[in-house]
Amino acid sequence: MKKTKSIKNVLFLIAGLLFITAVQAQEIQRNRGPQVVSPEIAKDKSVTFRIHSADAKSVSVNGSWMGMGESLEMTKGDEGVWSAKTGVLEPSMYHYNFILDGVSVLDPTNPQAMRDGRRYASTLIIPGEGSEFVEVNDVPHGSLTKVWYDSPTLDLNRRMYVYTPPGYADSKEKYPVLYLLHGGGGDEDAWTSLGRANYILDNLIAAGKAKPMIVVMTNGNPDQTVAISDQKMKPAADAPAAGGPMTMGAMDFPNSIVKDVIPYIEKHYRVLTNKENRALAGLSMGALQTQLTGMNNPELFNYLGVFSIGLQMEFGDTTTDLIKAYDTNLDVLKRNGFKLFYIGVGKEDFVYEGVTLLRKKLDEHDFDYIYNETGGGHTWANWRTYLSDYAPRLFK
Amino acid sequence: MKKTKSIKNVLFLIAGLLFITAVQAQEIQRNRGPQVVSPEIAKDKSVTFRIHSADAKSVSVNGSWMGMGESLEMTKGDEGVWSAKTGVLEPSMYHYNFILDGVSVLDPTNPQAMRDGRRYASTLIIPGEGSEFVEVNDVPHGSLTKVWYDSPTLDLNRRMYVYTPPGYADSKEKYPVLYLLHGGGGDEDAWTSLGRANYILDNLIAAGKAKPMIVVMTNGNPDQTVAISDQKMKPAADAPAAGGPMTMGAMDFPNSIVKDVIPYIEKHYRVLTNKENRALAGLSMGALQTQLTGMNNPELFNYLGVFSIGLQMEFGDTTTDLIKAYDTNLDVLKRNGFKLFYIGVGKEDFVYEGVTLLRKKLDEHDFDYIYNETGGGHTWANWRTYLSDYAPRLFK
Repeated sequence: MKKTKSIKNVLFLIAGLLFITAVQAQEIQRNRGPQVVSPEIAKDKSVTFRIHSADAKSVSVNGSWMGMGESLEMTKGDEGVWSAKTGVLEPSMYHYNFILDGVSVLDPTNPQAMRDGRRYASTLIIPGEGSEFVEVNDVPHGSLTKVWYDSPTLDLNRRMYVYTPPGYADSKEKYPVLYLLHGGGGDEDAWTSLGRANYILDNLIAAGKAKPMIVVMTNGNPDQTVAISDQKMKPAADAPAAGGPMTMGAMDFPNSIVKDVIPYIEKHYRVLTNKENRALAGLSMGALQTQLTGMNNPELFNYLGVFSIGLQMEFGDTTTDLIKAYDTNLDVLKRNGFKLFYIGVGKEDFVYEGVTLLRKKLDEHDFDYIYNETGGGHTWANWRTYLSDYAPRLFK
Repeated sequence: MKKTKSIKNVLFLIAGLLFITAVQAQEIQRNRGPQVVSPEIAKDKSVTFRIHSADAKSVSVNGSWMGMGESLEMTKGDEGVWSAKTGVLEPSMYHYNFILDGVSVLDPTNPQAMRDGRRYASTLIIPGEGSEFVEVNDVPHGSLTKVWYDSPTLDLNRRMYVYTPPGYADSKEKYPVLYLLHGGGGDEDAWTSLGRANYILDNLIAAGKAKPMIVVMTNGNPDQTVAISDQKMKPAADAPAAGGPMTMGAMDFPNSIVKDVIPYIEKHYRVLTNKENRALAGLSMGALQTQLTGMNNPELFNYLGVFSIGLQMEFGDTTTDLIKAYDTNLDVLKRNGFKLFYIGVGKEDFVYEGVTLLRKKLDEHDFDYIYNETGGGHTWANWRTYLSDYAPRLFK
């Protein structure tokens, strides 16, 4: 016993040594200056950001808690360490970048970051009520799987995420399914990396607020096999024209949900396969896909969640057509026993007018819905909130 | 039909519009300069890096294809765009950072990046023979799951990755299992994000080189529930002392593999549960854990892979004890029908001497092993190579 202990202690040292040796090379190259701590969250929930650069001409921080176009200048102190302190921040999940001589960069000392489309941002969770629901708390956690599935409709083998709730692997039970769609510029990674959907569900289920359910998060860009982070790089001559992610044709995707995704899930997972146990929700472009899929397939879903989009008149004929689908199928949905139409939108969102028109359309048909109007705009903070409000209302 | 087409075309436009609107705000803030393309891989496999900063005093690029301490200066051209062109690079997977006024930053226009411990680096795959085996090729892909499991040995509920091969979900077959351990400073993300283990296995299996197998990738830091990227941030006063990842106690982990991980996998997956169908491998710290686990449990594994570590004399008593375990159990392994001891090391690796001692120890016992000596040092390029050489030799 004593012997074991002493071996262990020596081994502790070894582990440390090994680590030091292995990364020393990097450290020497990258870290020539003083050690800095950033972000430093104070007890009062203000945050100090720091970065070391003896040579930078200007450094500022741009964060998701700020208004459009705002940033916080950092000032240069001893030994070339730049710093800035925020006011008190509300408990929430935020992302931010430093702007270093005009370049948007990660906080070099923060190990938490995420990809937003083609860019990376550092992340920051101010603990407290308002962020607990997105944290990795000490509760049972579901599994999150990257699954490749055949999509005959899009003629691709492609990737999606499947969240199975805690207990799935140990039970023989069948579960209801929420299909959850990302917005323009996003991909299959978005709802878990930016949206924290898996942790939100873990927390809701642990608190008894949501029923255990499977959540399926697809890639809504129908020409992508996989998120851009995992795509093959091509020599420049073969590369597609530079530009944003490929969202063209995004509206082919509703067909694929119906013909490819749902059948795959219902074949490979222990799920309940009727409309009482199917929900669909999406944000922005995904909320347009949600409306199209839901209205054109009134036999498939009893629950629709439309986050941050509505009947946008700027879309012309399409909106006219979508309105026709509403006029035709809202009554079908009612007769079918449809359960919940959920709308979430921020007061400052650029789609606000379209959402107002959508509500009018529903009112016209005397069609019940839940309307969650929050502050803010077209933001992940809102989408996380809508998911955490929507999921508890499902399958009850 | 015509109608559908025309709706589709309008919807194409909408998807584009939506995307533009949604990200415009970010673009305006972050992208005040000219559009740059970076990295640009030329047909001859040289690479041009570019970054826009009107104000930077100096910019260079530091990449994993360079020798220790080297970097490539970038020069400022028109409109504040800095650039540098490499020589011809061998097809491989690389990572790199720009050093912008002394700060290590991502390439802002490269959507591919990874976390290495507490830091992020941009990634770059030069296509060709030598990188095909790590690419996302058009082959069947296995599933990759983040699973939380109870570890009574470590008194934690914690996360690991499980790769199930293509076809697993559609078969009733039982599969062999490779347990794959990361090194110091790493965590459960490492073998898939830096190591591309899932894509390596996809490619080997598709080529008929490796048998379909399950690969289990744990977190070998026994005080972590989850990688640092997903840990709760704490207000500064509650935070642990600043420093590297917590590898202290890393050697408690072998017990947990045996008592917690293997039983969990054998309960929840369709796997073959004998030593003929269990393999273990690890790199650096994980290779020390591999040796300890394998030598102290000679009934468990028929295959051991020891990447980039050996009998390091600088570890004193521990190495003495490990040598005793070899002296005792190598003969037991032989009698048990042990199949493969695999050693990989780079000529320039700082552990090279220890690996030579390990080989001597095996020779002393007339114990067969496969020895793969490559160029380079303690690098992921080598570990990806060793995995791709080791996996095809398993379970045959």
